[in-house]
Amino acid sequence: MRFEDVQAEVAAFRDDRDWRQFHNPKDLAISVSLEASELLETFQWSGTDLECKDKEASIGEELADVMIYCLLLADRLGMDPVQLMHDKIQKNARKYPVDKARGSSKKYTEL
Amino acid sequence: MRFEDVQAEVAAFRDDRDWRQFHNPKDLAISVSLEASELLETFQWSGTDLECKDKEASIGEELADVMIYCLLLADRLGMDPVQLMHDKIQKNARKYPVDKARGSSKKYTEL
Amino acid sequence: MRFEDVQAEVAAFRDDRDWRQFHNPKDLAISVSLEASELLETFQWSGTDLECKDKEASIGEELADVMIYCLLLADRLGMDPVQLMHDKIQKNARKYPVDKARGSSKKYTEL
Amino acid sequence: MRFEDVQAEVAAFRDDRDWRQFHNPKDLAISVSLEASELLETFQWSGTDLECKDKEASIGEELADVMIYCLLLADRLGMDPVQLMHDKIQKNARKYPVDKARGSSKKYTEL
Repeated sequence: MRFEDVQAEVAAFRDDRDWRQFHNPKDLAISVSLEASELLETFQWSGTDLECKDKEASIGEELADVMIYCLLLADRLGMDPVQLMHDKIQKNARKYPVDKARGSSKKYTEL
Repeated sequence: MRFEDVQAEVAAFRDDRDWRQFHNPKDLAISVSLEASELLETFQWSGTDLECKDKEASIGEELADVMIYCLLLADRLGMDPVQLMHDKIQKNARKYPVDKARGSSKKYTEL
Repeated sequence: MRFEDVQAEVAAFRDDRDWRQFHNPKDLAISVSLEASELLETFQWSGTDLECKDKEASIGEELADVMIYCLLLADRLGMDPVQLMHDKIQKNARKYPVDKARGSSKKYTEL
Repeated sequence: MRFEDVQAEVAAFRDDRDWRQFHNPKDLAISVSLEASELLETFQWSGTDLECKDKEASIGEELADVMIYCLLLADRLGMDPVQLMHDKIQKNARKYPVDKARGSSKKYTEL
């Protein structure tokens, strides 16, 4: 299965249900945030146990929902998600130069 | 540019900086949620103006950051993001049957 | 009912269930964020209809959950929530001087 | 300083800047969520180190911002935050009976 096939599946899922009418950018951004919280909820109270073997199925599903809404928002805005990521990785690489950022979890404003 | 190329770029960005040591699933899920909020922030106080022509550049960048962290979490868990989305779209299609969900923005629990 | 009484109720709710052991600051901060998302979910797909008469009951409940976790986090850190808000309002007033911020929804960095 | 005094300060802060016009419930709920993310950001990459002595000042400030927006939303909806919390604690107590929930971090749906 290729990425382009999933993009087409996501768009067809929306159009089969006539949901494009609800998909304004603001509510899609809200939806990305809500799904990201559902993903995060699987880690609530996991304390120092940061691994998650027994929760992998639900993590995978929540992660998929975040990505699906990302594709829907990109589609709504006429943007290519692959190109967006490629461009942002270049920009992030300039914000976090290898020699300064290597082995550090500090924010770029503190490097 | 293909999706697989961006996946490789994202992984190389992390490994060049020796950041894999910080990338436990819980903190990656937190990061997805934080980036989703930065995306949402571009729509704060936009009121009834749900369009966003003049903010498209920053929306695209924030959206890219959400997707990049999704790829990093999927990679950390050894999951294929394309397969995850494909599987979840099938499941969502069962939760939202076309005949019930068509033209409705209700949650599946209320259909 | 006074604020101090509710603070005591919240602490008693936690202690009756022996939950202090789970309440590390990081997971409490996650919980504040998760409850804030449940609050936000009541507004998903409300489109340009920014009012919410028929959802007021659930909004009130979700809002209460956010505030309850805020009190739990403040208590865990030994901080007084009333003092925290008082101090922050003073600081926000300096970030947003009346003459510059009046009638504007811009962020302080753009004023 | 009493809670009622801070409530009045928060309302005066808003009204001095003529910001009531922007404070529709949906954007206030978004703002609660955004501030909750800024609070959570102070814990990003803290790994198993769940304590946070050196970050307490910024945690207190971000926590205050979450609560301030909660008060603004409650005020906008004509709701009493103290009463909201009191009512919700009663409801949560029914969802999490002491004998079932004691010492468990499970969600009520799993108890």
